[in-house]
Order: sequence, then C-alpha cells, then structure tokens
Amino acid sequence: MFRNNYDGDTVTFSPTGRLFQVEYALEAIKQGSVTVGLRSKNYAVITALKRNADELSSYQKKIIRCDEHLGLSLAGLAPDARVLSNYLRQQCNYSQLVFNRKLSVEKAGHLLSDKAQQNTQSYGGRPYGVGLLIIGYDNSGAHLLEFQPSGNTLEVYGSAIGARSQGAKTYLERVMDKYIEIEDPEELIKTCVEALRQSLKDETLTTDNLSIAIVGKDIPFTQYDNEKVTPYL
Amino acid sequence: MFRNNYDGDTVTFSPTGRLFQVEYALEAIKQGSVTVGLRSKNYAVITALKRNADELSSYQKKIIRCDEHLGLSLAGLAPDARVLSNYLRQQCNYSQLVFNRKLSVEKAGHLLSDKAQQNTQSYGGRPYGVGLLIIGYDNSGAHLLEFQPSGNTLEVYGSAIGARSQGAKTYLERVMDKYIEIEDPEELIKTCVEALRQSLKDETLTTDNLSIAIVGKDIPFTQYDNEKVTPYL
Amino acid sequence: MFRNNYDGDTVTFSPTGRLFQVEYALEAIKQGSVTVGLRSKNYAVITALKRNADELSSYQKKIIRCDEHLGLSLAGLAPDARVLSNYLRQQCNYSQLVFNRKLSVEKAGHLLSDKAQQNTQSYGGRPYGVGLLIIGYDNSGAHLLEFQPSGNTLEVYGSAIGARSQGAKTYLERVMDKYIEIEDPEELIKTCVEALRQSLKDETLTTDNLSIAIVGKDIPFTQYDNEKVTPYL
Amino acid sequence: MFRNNYDGDTVTFSPTGRLFQVEYALEAIKQGSVTVGLRSKNYAVITALKRNADELSSYQKKIIRCDEHLGLSLAGLAPDARVLSNYLRQQCNYSQLVFNRKLSVEKAGHLLSDKAQQNTQSYGGRPYGVGLLIIGYDNSGAHLLEFQPSGNTLEVYGSAIGARSQGAKTYLERVMDKYIEIEDPEELIKTCVEALRQSLKDETLTTDNLSIAIVGKDIPFTQYDNEKVTPYL
Amino acid sequence: MFRNNYDGDTVTFSPTGRLFQVEYALEAIKQGSVTVGLRSKNYAVITALKRNADELSSYQKKIIRCDEHLGLSLAGLAPDARVLSNYLRQQCNYSQLVFNRKLSVEKAGHLLSDKAQQNTQSYGGRPYGVGLLIIGYDNSGAHLLEFQPSGNTLEVYGSAIGARSQGAKTYLERVMDKYIEIEDPEELIKTCVEALRQSLKDETLTTDNLSIAIVGKDIPFTQYDNEKVTPYL
Amino acid sequence: MFRNNYDGDTVTFSPTGRLFQVEYALEAIKQGSVTVGLRSKNYAVITALKRNADELSSYQKKIIRCDEHLGLSLAGLAPDARVLSNYLRQQCNYSQLVFNRKLSVEKAGHLLSDKAQQNTQSYGGRPYGVGLLIIGYDNSGAHLLEFQPSGNTLEVYGSAIGARSQGAKTYLERVMDKYIEIEDPEELIKTCVEALRQSLKDETLTTDNLSIAIVGKDIPFTQYDNEKVTPYL
Amino acid sequence: MFRNNYDGDTVTFSPTGRLFQVEYALEAIKQGSVTVGLRSKNYAVITALKRNADELSSYQKKIIRCDEHLGLSLAGLAPDARVLSNYLRQQCNYSQLVFNRKLSVEKAGHLLSDKAQQNTQSYGGRPYGVGLLIIGYDNSGAHLLEFQPSGNTLEVYGSAIGARSQGAKTYLERVMDKYIEIEDPEELIKTCVEALRQSLKDETLTTDNLSIAIVGKDIPFTQYDNEKVTPYL
Repeated sequence: MFRNNYDGDTVTFSPTGRLFQVEYALEAIKQGSVTVGLRSKNYAVITALKRNADELSSYQKKIIRCDEHLGLSLAGLAPDARVLSNYLRQQCNYSQLVFNRKLSVEKAGHLLSDKAQQNTQSYGGRPYGVGLLIIGYDNSGAHLLEFQPSGNTLEVYGSAIGARSQGAKTYLERVMDKYIEIEDPEELIKTCVEALRQSLKDETLTTDNLSIAIVGKDIPFTQYDNEKVTPYL
Repeated sequence: MFRNNYDGDTVTFSPTGRLFQVEYALEAIKQGSVTVGLRSKNYAVITALKRNADELSSYQKKIIRCDEHLGLSLAGLAPDARVLSNYLRQQCNYSQLVFNRKLSVEKAGHLLSDKAQQNTQSYGGRPYGVGLLIIGYDNSGAHLLEFQPSGNTLEVYGSAIGARSQGAKTYLERVMDKYIEIEDPEELIKTCVEALRQSLKDETLTTDNLSIAIVGKDIPFTQYDNEKVTPYL
Repeated sequence: MFRNNYDGDTVTFSPTGRLFQVEYALEAIKQGSVTVGLRSKNYAVITALKRNADELSSYQKKIIRCDEHLGLSLAGLAPDARVLSNYLRQQCNYSQLVFNRKLSVEKAGHLLSDKAQQNTQSYGGRPYGVGLLIIGYDNSGAHLLEFQPSGNTLEVYGSAIGARSQGAKTYLERVMDKYIEIEDPEELIKTCVEALRQSLKDETLTTDNLSIAIVGKDIPFTQYDNEKVTPYL
Repeated sequence: MFRNNYDGDTVTFSPTGRLFQVEYALEAIKQGSVTVGLRSKNYAVITALKRNADELSSYQKKIIRCDEHLGLSLAGLAPDARVLSNYLRQQCNYSQLVFNRKLSVEKAGHLLSDKAQQNTQSYGGRPYGVGLLIIGYDNSGAHLLEFQPSGNTLEVYGSAIGARSQGAKTYLERVMDKYIEIEDPEELIKTCVEALRQSLKDETLTTDNLSIAIVGKDIPFTQYDNEKVTPYL
Repeated sequence: MFRNNYDGDTVTFSPTGRLFQVEYALEAIKQGSVTVGLRSKNYAVITALKRNADELSSYQKKIIRCDEHLGLSLAGLAPDARVLSNYLRQQCNYSQLVFNRKLSVEKAGHLLSDKAQQNTQSYGGRPYGVGLLIIGYDNSGAHLLEFQPSGNTLEVYGSAIGARSQGAKTYLERVMDKYIEIEDPEELIKTCVEALRQSLKDETLTTDNLSIAIVGKDIPFTQYDNEKVTPYL
Repeated sequence: MFRNNYDGDTVTFSPTGRLFQVEYALEAIKQGSVTVGLRSKNYAVITALKRNADELSSYQKKIIRCDEHLGLSLAGLAPDARVLSNYLRQQCNYSQLVFNRKLSVEKAGHLLSDKAQQNTQSYGGRPYGVGLLIIGYDNSGAHLLEFQPSGNTLEVYGSAIGARSQGAKTYLERVMDKYIEIEDPEELIKTCVEALRQSLKDETLTTDNLSIAIVGKDIPFTQYDNEKVTPYL
Repeated sequence: MFRNNYDGDTVTFSPTGRLFQVEYALEAIKQGSVTVGLRSKNYAVITALKRNADELSSYQKKIIRCDEHLGLSLAGLAPDARVLSNYLRQQCNYSQLVFNRKLSVEKAGHLLSDKAQQNTQSYGGRPYGVGLLIIGYDNSGAHLLEFQPSGNTLEVYGSAIGARSQGAKTYLERVMDKYIEIEDPEELIKTCVEALRQSLKDETLTTDNLSIAIVGKDIPFTQYDNEKVTPYL
C-alpha cells in the first residue's frame, strides 16, 4: 500500500491544504448501508436500509429519536453515531429544562458541528466516522441537515449517504421540484422510500430491512419499523 | 511480516475508512474457546467450552454472573472481560440502589457500547480484545446481546463467538425457527448445548469443560457446572 | 509524493526559518470559494460566492454576523471559521456587558491574531485552515481586516481570498483610488460585486450564489441574500 | 534481529489479535529460577529454588509472606514481584481493618488480575515481568493460584513456573491424583520438594538454596529456610 | 533536501553542542523587512522599513509602543512579536501598579530573555521566530537592546536586523563614534534613517514605508509615520 | 553501530523478556571507579577509589553518610547517587521523627528498590545509572546491601562494583570465610582495603584517592579520608 | 552526518551506559569564550574573556553576582546560565530570609547539581548547555566549584572552561603549588589573568574584553570591568 505522508493524524495539513484523516472518515460513511432524507415545507422524512450480520441477528438500528421534534439516521460507524445522538439528546433535555423551549434544529446542527470540529483540530483523537441525516420541526418549519465528520452541517432539501447513495441522490434531484411542494405526509414518505429503492442493488425492501421516520407539523417524531412499514413497500 | 501503514493505533483511519486496530481486536476473540447463546421469548441460554492449560489447572471461567437477571459469557482476553463484567456489575448495583429497579438489558448493552467506543477514539489505549454474549431477562422479556470490541452491541436471536464458532452458528440458523418457540427451559438448554457441540473438533463435552447458564421467566440467572451439567451431555 | 522534512507539525522551523504547516494552511483557503471586501471611509462591504454541493443542498453560508457593527466572510474550512466567529461573538458580548462599549474592530483583529498564533506555537494542534475578511464600523470609521492562519491580521483597503481571488484583487487595485472616495453605500456594494465577478470562471452570479454584507455610518451590519441581492446583479 | 512490527507497546494488537509485549513478559518469567506449588484440600505448599549471584551474595528471596493466611513465590523480575506483593499486603491489611475479615484468596487473585490488566491496556507502562504462585487458606479451604502478566490468575491444583519448570509440571501431573488426597502436611511438602527436584539440572537442593512455605488448616503461613529445610532434603 | 538529524526539536543538542531549531529561528528574522536602531547617551532611535503585501493592504506595523519610556521594532514573524510586546506591556503596567515605578530597560530585557529561554528548553513548543530592537529611557539613560530567539538580549550601541541588514550595520559601525556623541534628537533620527537606507535594494524610503520612533531625555516614546516622517526623507 | 530494536526505552520487553535499558544502566556502573564492601557479624566496611579529573580538581566524593547508622558508596553517575542518597537521608529523618526509631537497613533497601523499580516501568524517565553499596548497623547486626538500577537490592557478605571490580570480588570470595569471623574493626578495614587494591591497575592507593567508611557495634558511621587513611595503606 | 542511535534524548542509555545528550551539552560549553578560576585558602578569583558580536554590541556579560559572598562565570549558552544564576540568587535570598544565614558554597553546588540532574532524567527537556565556575567565601573558607551539565559539581583548586581552555588549565597545573599559598588578593588576580592569557589565540586582553571577580576574607564579591581591570593587563 502506498503511504501518503500527510495522513497520519488529523492535525497535519497536506501541502495542498487538505486534512486526509478527515477525508478518510468520509470513506467510513460509504461502508455503511444507505439512508435517504428529504423535506417539504412542513414535513421531513428519513428512510434507511437496515442490515443484519446474519439470520440470527436482529437488524441494526439506523434511526435514532433525540426528542419529540428531532431525530436522525446514520451511515458509518454505529458506535460513533451513538456518541453524537446521546449528545444531542442531552442538549435537547438541557434546552427544555433550562430555557423551557425545544432545541432549534439549526442550533442542533451547530452543536454537532462544534463537537466534530474539535476532533479535527486536536491530537490524540480521530474524526467521527459517521454521517448523519437529521430531521426536525421547529418554529421555522421542517428541516433536514446533513452532518459530516469535518464538522460541516449543511441544510439540505434532500440527501442520501452510505453505500451506493448516488442512485437515491440522482432520483431526488430529478423529483425535488415536486416533493418540496407535497403537503401530504404519506406521499412524502412514499417518495423517500422510492428514493431509497434507487440505491439498492440485489436487495428488496421488506418489513425487516426498511426503517422510516417522519417529523413535521402536528406530527411528532415517529418511527415506522417492521409491519408498520408495509403500506410503503 | 508485511507492515500495514494504518494499523498502528485506534485513532487512525485507513484510506478506505477502516480502523484496523479494532478489526485486529476481533481476531483476539477468535483465539478464545467457543461460546454459544440463544433465546426464546421467555428464556435466554448460554453455553461455553471451558479450557484448562494443563491437567493441573482448573478450567477457565467462561460465564460470569452480573446480577440476578443478567450474566454473560466471553471469548478472547479473559482479563478484559473481567473489566467489562465488573463494570456491568457496578452498574447493576447502582441501578438497584439509586433507582430501585433492575438495569434493563438494553441499557446494559448501551453502557458497554459507550465504554468500548471510547477506547476506539482516544490515543494511548486499545480496544477491548474480547467478545461477550450477554443474556438477561427484564420487563420486555428475555434478551441476548452480542458485544463487539468496536462498541457495537447487537440484539440477536442466537450467536456463537470464539474458535470454530461458525459450526454452531450454522446449526442455530438451521433450527432458529424451532427454538424461538420453545417454552421449556430444559429443551432450550439442550438446543444450546447441541449447538456448542457443532463447534468442537477433537473435543467431547464433559462435566469438566461444559458450562451452562440460563435466565428467564421465574428463573434467576443460574449457572451449571461440573456434575450439574450431566443431564445435558 | 516528495516528503518535506520540516512540515510535520507547526512547531518545527525549516532550515530557512519557515513554518510549513502554517503555509499549507494557506492552501486550504485557496480551496474555498472566493470572497471580496473593500471599504471607503465610512462603509465596508464584503461579497462572497456561495457554493452548494449539489442541487439538493442549500448554499453554504459564507458571511457571518458577529455583532451589530461587526461581521466577516470566510474562505477555507467552514467549521474552523465557526470556531473563530463564535469566539468573536463572545468577545463582542463580553465587551458590551463588562465595558458597556462595542468591541473596536482593531481589538477584534488583535484577539483573532492572538488566538491563531497560539495554534502555531504549541504541539498537538494545527493552524486554523481558514482566511477571514472582517468588516466593522466603530469610532475610528469603517474597517476591513484580512485574517490569516499565521495570526497575521492586516488592515486593508480591499482584499479577495479563496479560489481565483487574483482576478478580484487586480480589479480592486485598478479601481481603488475611486472607491475609497465613494460615499454612497449602494455604489460601494456594486463595486464589490463587480470585483467578485472578476474571479468567476464558468459561473454567473445569481440570487442563489451571491451573498453581500455592509456595515458603516448609520448602517448596522446588514446581510443581503437571495432575492435581496437582485438589485446588484 | 528481526523486527516484529506489532510488539513496540502493550496497546497494539497484531493482525492476529495478539499482544506481543504481554507475551514477551512471559519470557521474563522463564529467566527466573523455578518455583513449584501444589495443594490438597486443606493445605497448600510452595517450594522454590533460590539463587545467589556469587559466593558473596545471600540467596535471593523467592517466597514472600503477605498475611497470616496468604503468601506467594515468584519467578521473573524480583522488583516487580515486590510491587505486587506490597499491594497484596496492603489489601490484606485493608480487609482486616475495614471489614474485620481476612482477604479471601479468590479476591486476592481478582485484585492482582485487575492491577495487571491495567498495565496491558494503557500506553506508557509495561506488563509486570513476573509470574507468581499464590497459596492461601480461607473459609473455602486451601488454594493455589497462578498469576500471569496478562492479568490471568488461574486456580490450579499444582503448577511450576520459571526455568526448566516443565520437569516439575510433568511430575505433578503424574502424581496429582495422589497428593490431592494427602492430609499430612509433612508429606505434602515432601511431594512439592520432589517436584522441584525434577526441574534441577546441575544443581542439588541444599539448605542454602531450598525455600519452602506452607499454609492450611491450623497452620498459618509458615516459611522454612536454611537448616529448617533439612528434614525435606 | 538533506535531513539534518538533530534539528527536529528545540530540546536536542547536536553532537557539536548546537540547538539547530534555535538557529533556524534566526533565519525567520532574515525573512523580515529591515529595522535599524542606535543610541546616544540620552536618546535611542529605531527606524524600520514597512512592507505591504500589495497595493490594497496598509503597511505592516513594524514599531510597537510598550510604555511611555519603552518600545520596540521587529523583524520576523509579526504574530510572535505581538506575544512578546503584549508581555512587555503587561510587565510595564505591573511595575507601575505594584512598585509605582517604570520598568527598567535592563529588567525588560531580562524578562524577554527568560520567556524566550523557556521555549528553547521544553518539548512541544518552538523558539520565537522574531528579532526585536528595544529602545527605552530610564534612570540610567537611553538604552538599545537586541533580542534574539535564543533568549540572548544584548545591550548594543547600534544594530540592524532583517533582510539585507548588513548594509545598515556596516554604516553604523563606520559612524558610531560620531553618533554616540550626538545630543540633538533630530540629527540622531537622521543618522538612523540614513543607516536604514543602506539596507535598501530596489526600494526608496517614502512616507508610506518609513517608520521612526524615538525615546529619551524629556522625550516620551514617540512614533512617526506617514507625513510625519517627511522631514527625514 | 548496530541498532537493537528493543532498547529504546525502559518499558519495552525484548522477545526474550529482557529490559535492555536497565541492562545498559549497569554499564554506567562499570564506568565508575571501583568500590568494595564487606561485613562481619558486627561491622560493615566500604572502601572506594576516588578519582579526580585532573591535578586541579579535588577527588570526587565516593562515600556518602545518610545517618548515624547508615551510609553508602557509589559507582556510576554521581548525580544519580545524590538523588538516591538524599532520598535515604530524608527517610532516615522521617523514621526518627515519626516513629522515634532508626530506619532499619532492610527497610532502607526496600525503599531504594521501590523507587528504582518505578523508573523501570514508566515511560519518560530512565533507570538510575548508578550502583550502591549500603552499609548499616541495626538491631539485627551489621548489613551490607548491593543496590542495582533494576531495583534489585541484595543482602551480600561482600561485593565490589565499578571498573575492574572483578579483581576485588575474586579476592573477597577467597577470604570470605575468614573475614566474616573477624571481630576487630581495624582488621576488617584492612581486608577491605586489600580487596580494593586487587582491582587497581596502574594506580596505587594514596591518602588522596582512598576513602574508607565503617559502621557497627558501638561504632557510628565513620568515614576516613586523606591523612586518616594512612594507617591502612 | 552519521546518526548515533542513542542520542535522541536525555533518558536513553547507550549500550555502553552513556547519556549522549549530556555529553553533547558539554560541547556547547566549548563553543563559549574561556573563563578561568582559581583559589587560595582565603580568596577565590575568576577571570573571563568577554566577546562582542560586532563593534556595535556591548561585550557579553560573563560574570554574574549571586550574593555578597557568591558569584559565578559561565561558558556556553548564556540564557541557560541566567536560569541557573537566577535560581542561585533566589536560594541565597531564601537562606538569608528564612535561616538568617548565608547559603554555604557547598550547599549552592548541591542545589545546582540537583536542578541539573532532573534535566538528565526526564523526557521533554534537555540538559543545561552551560558550564559554570562558582566562587564563594563562607565559614569554611574560599571555594571554587565547577558545574557541569550532568549535574556534577566539583570542588576544584583551579579550572578553565570554554574555547581553548586547555592552555589555561595547563598553566594552572604548573603553578598550582604556588598560588594556593598566595595570601595577597592582588597577586592571585594577576595569576588568574595570566592563566586566562594562556588560552587566547589571536586576541589580546583589553579593558573591553577582560572581566574579573574576586571574593574572600574581608572582600565581598567584587567585579572588575572596563578601566578597573587596567592594573591587571
């Protein structure tokens, strides 16, 4: 294997100004199974493909609820996602307890950004090896954020991360104009499931491997698994 | 020996987004003697093959009780397993003392996950070199968790880890449909012992080397060793 | 790739007295999209080209407000810019709360300088991989500062940083004599937009990708995005 | 000398899941002079071969008393054994003072395990380079433990560690069935001395180089050196 | 590039007893624009050549006031000079507040020495990459100190540091006998400007790039920039 | 010079279980001038060869008094011996003040052992590069200890360490049977001086280079230098 | 340049038991200008050759007063000497304030020894790169100590350190018998100046470059510079 001279740790710039360890962390995301998110004005939806190691294992959790109005899906190292979602959950509680208001989705993104940035600028740690799609609903409507290991957290209309996510992205780009106008949550979910389907290779979506979550106007963060996803298959 | 450039510590991603030290820790598990676990709705069972260094040594402990409703078996570095089981035992006590309730099995898995994840993201330590099968019984029924050095803790219906564990896994997959319906603890134990037998090579199960534990409805965590395992041979 | 022997960390001088890691951080700025700033006696303006990763993403924030009289635009690693702008915002609050006066623009520059210098003289961190154009208005008039990862913060009449910024710089140098006399804010903004245009290659400025901010006499820090930039296209 | 790439410190797994530094520490034990231990139901005995550097030196201490009911013999780095035996002695005192009961032998083994495990999982130290045979007598009878640098502490019926210890081990295995039934302490000691003799090469046991200790029912930890060992030669 | 084996950090002596990192820091000084200082019995003067990156930038500050009786000019890394001048300024304040007297110039030099020496004897930092000419006036008359990254702070009659400073030095040596007798501050400044001129190559001194400061008997530290330097051109 | 791969620090075992840095520290002892010690039942004596760098220097101190009943001689790095003897002196004071009794010689050896062992098991330090011969007299009679950098502290009847010490050792072994019976302190000193003489090469013992100390029954630690050694030449 | 494998830091022994970094620090002393010291029973004198970088610089301080009865001269890194002399000065003050007595010269040497030894046994620092000649007068008469980076501090009758110091040493050895009897301070100074002269090459002693200090019976530490040295030229 060819040894790159500037990729030993996260605190060394390459001569072209790149942080290779941060870029390698992006590769860890591509190892994870795909997850897709999209939003209209009032609703945000995420779908994810669950995997199991073998017949005996239950399917790995891909979607995590953080608060009544906030949740996320992940692609990459699951234990790293736990650290970040635990952190968000604490911050949600803290906001409720101390300020008596829900943590805004934008603020949630900022908090993740700052936490992840620290890991890219101090020796002895490593960037988080996970990407997140965060959905939430607050005073300013529905939101979809894409979190990256670099600490970049982008507001997006739709996104897909993980293995073969390009298929879903291409689909979303094609139909974006339509779905951002959709005001029927059911239809929005169907679009998101269809996008997920575009990233499958030899798999079929089933009640076992499909996970869905929605949040929005009058809809607290709700997750559908197993038989509950049947209507969307 | 070929030197991989990205496997010197746990905080360096390879260009393909892998953490090699975490993967090497998995190899330590394969050096350990096999242990098998399975569960039905109300009972969870683990069996393990004990080894002794020579005639003079007693057989190494493979199953550790954490609380009345929780225990585990291990494959890999035994001293690392001690650290983790001691931690679980403390958390069980803490839950009982502070919240006056048993630590839920799911929570136990989360606690192990978080502890192990830290060792994969800070310089100067190493991942735990041990895999665990955790069985427990709480309000939501019987559970079987598989803990991995990465911090992944999966809910499984059955699993086998350690040397030649594939034999047991194949057997479990074949009979899973049957045993998840079994409501007779005795029969469940027998299935688990049979699975263990599928992973043996030149060994025979004896009262010396077989260790069994069960937990479930009306059955606190109970361990069978020596003559007590005779009925299951 | 040729290995330079003195670029492993920020605390090693090369035999010619250079700190290569600090120089490499400058390269990270060149990866960012261009931003341009200029000032007359009473007004300071920044314009920036926003990028989006794809159709689905919103455009990345390039301009950040710190206080009523102070703001900045960035080129380079956005998460690093967040750290620095958060720091400035805290210092602005602190100045207001403790001294009951606005943080002077010069002092703001000094604070950034000192914070960035520390990262170039202690092992285990890295220089900030971002350049900033800071505009502000205080008792001594309008100011434009250019912040560099080395900790140099220069007072400038105009500047452009980021990809292909040389085009804008050349334009600014040519028209500097004129714009430093301009007292009409609108006209100043137009000059700044025109300068930005000189650094574009295959892009056109649109309501989507143009971001403008101004601060000055009787004008608190004001940002124009989306349809608000139409008059300046 | 061939350089193994994964043996530089105790926190690096080899690709096969081994911790080489821990294995090398085992080699330090083999450099030490031999010590042998065995136990019946009510008595545990250790014998050890003392060495002296030259005629002028006294013979090195091989057996260390920790408490009235607990002691140990060592093979390997004597200063490391001091650290561990001092620790045990403190724990014995602590148990007596705080809980008003003797430290159980099993607990003593656990304490050593935990202390040694820490040195195999934190950067900047090294595993202990010593093996111990611990004998003790408590409510559950006589015990013999074998401590290893990995943190493994095994309950054994008999063991021998140090240079050429295989001879003693083979002997013990052959006669184990007999000695575990012996209820005469004197006879037990003789068996243990005989085992030690099996590991000698050009040496003869003398009052100078033989060290014996016994503990058990109605016999506090007692050590025999010099003329006191004459009856057993 | 040839790799010197003993220049990796400031705490390694070469076999000839040299600290290469400290010597490399001297090279950083040579990269800076030239500054010249001289003193007579009652007055000390510094002149410096200011540079700007381009037409748009203001000229970089080369002279920094520390107190009414003390100031300095710099050549090398400006952010490092800020750290040192901030430190001197604090010490001046401290002396005034706590002892109610001005910090003596000699003491100021000692303080800089001690601060810089620490950076040459502890791992994890780097020497300051800047040279300073410090002028001051106290009870013992006018002083001129030259500060070096090694922590050497020399009392000098005249000095020049930075790019092509040799020209100025040669000039000063030639006329030293004269200027140390000069009691007219104006004439002293003129000599110092003339010395500076000897180090120029393709540049001419202008109101833009010339910076002058004087301190002495009945003259508090006074800096001349822009049009104020016209009389000395 | 051939590079041994396992001798970079004190916390790395070689594949054969050796700690090379500890062994190299023994070599530092061999660089020091010779010192010899012996003891009978009631008296312990040390003699040492003092060296001076040149005619102008006084002779280096080789014997250090720690307490009325305890002292030592050294071979190797004198500054390291200072650290250890200062430590012993403090412990002697402490014992006297807190327990109102003299520090026993055995305890003194244990304290040195523990202090030295720490330096062989923690990264970032080095073993002490000095050997010591400690003589003392307490309730259990006269003692002679040999301290080694590994932390081994052996009770010996006689010993010699330092350059060409083998000559003295051989002599001591030959006459040991005699001197351990000697009850006349004077005669004992003469034997020890004679032993020292066996290790000389081109030197002769003189009042300048011979240093003697004795401690024992009714004789507090007494040192003879210069003209006081004349009777023993 | 040939890379020695054991000279990277001060905490690594070479296979021959040497600490190379400590030896390299001795080389730094040889780079410094020469200083000479000698003593009779009641007086101690040091002389030193001052250097200046060029005509414009004052001559570097070579002699430092620590207290009324104690001072020193240096060869090597002047900033390191400042650290050590500041330390001595503090200790002198402390002794006066707390114990109301002057710090004895022997104790001063011990303090320097201990401080310097620490730098040879802890990772992350470096040995002091300076040699010192310390003169003092206390109850036990006049003293001359030679301090070395290893922590060795030797009592000497005369010594010379720095560039070409061998010439002075040879002279001192030849005349030592005479000067140790001299009771006339003036004559003693003259001998010391003459010794210094033996180490010059192309230089002549002048009022500019000669520095002298004496301390002794009824003579507090007195330094002669400039015109005051005329009588001794």
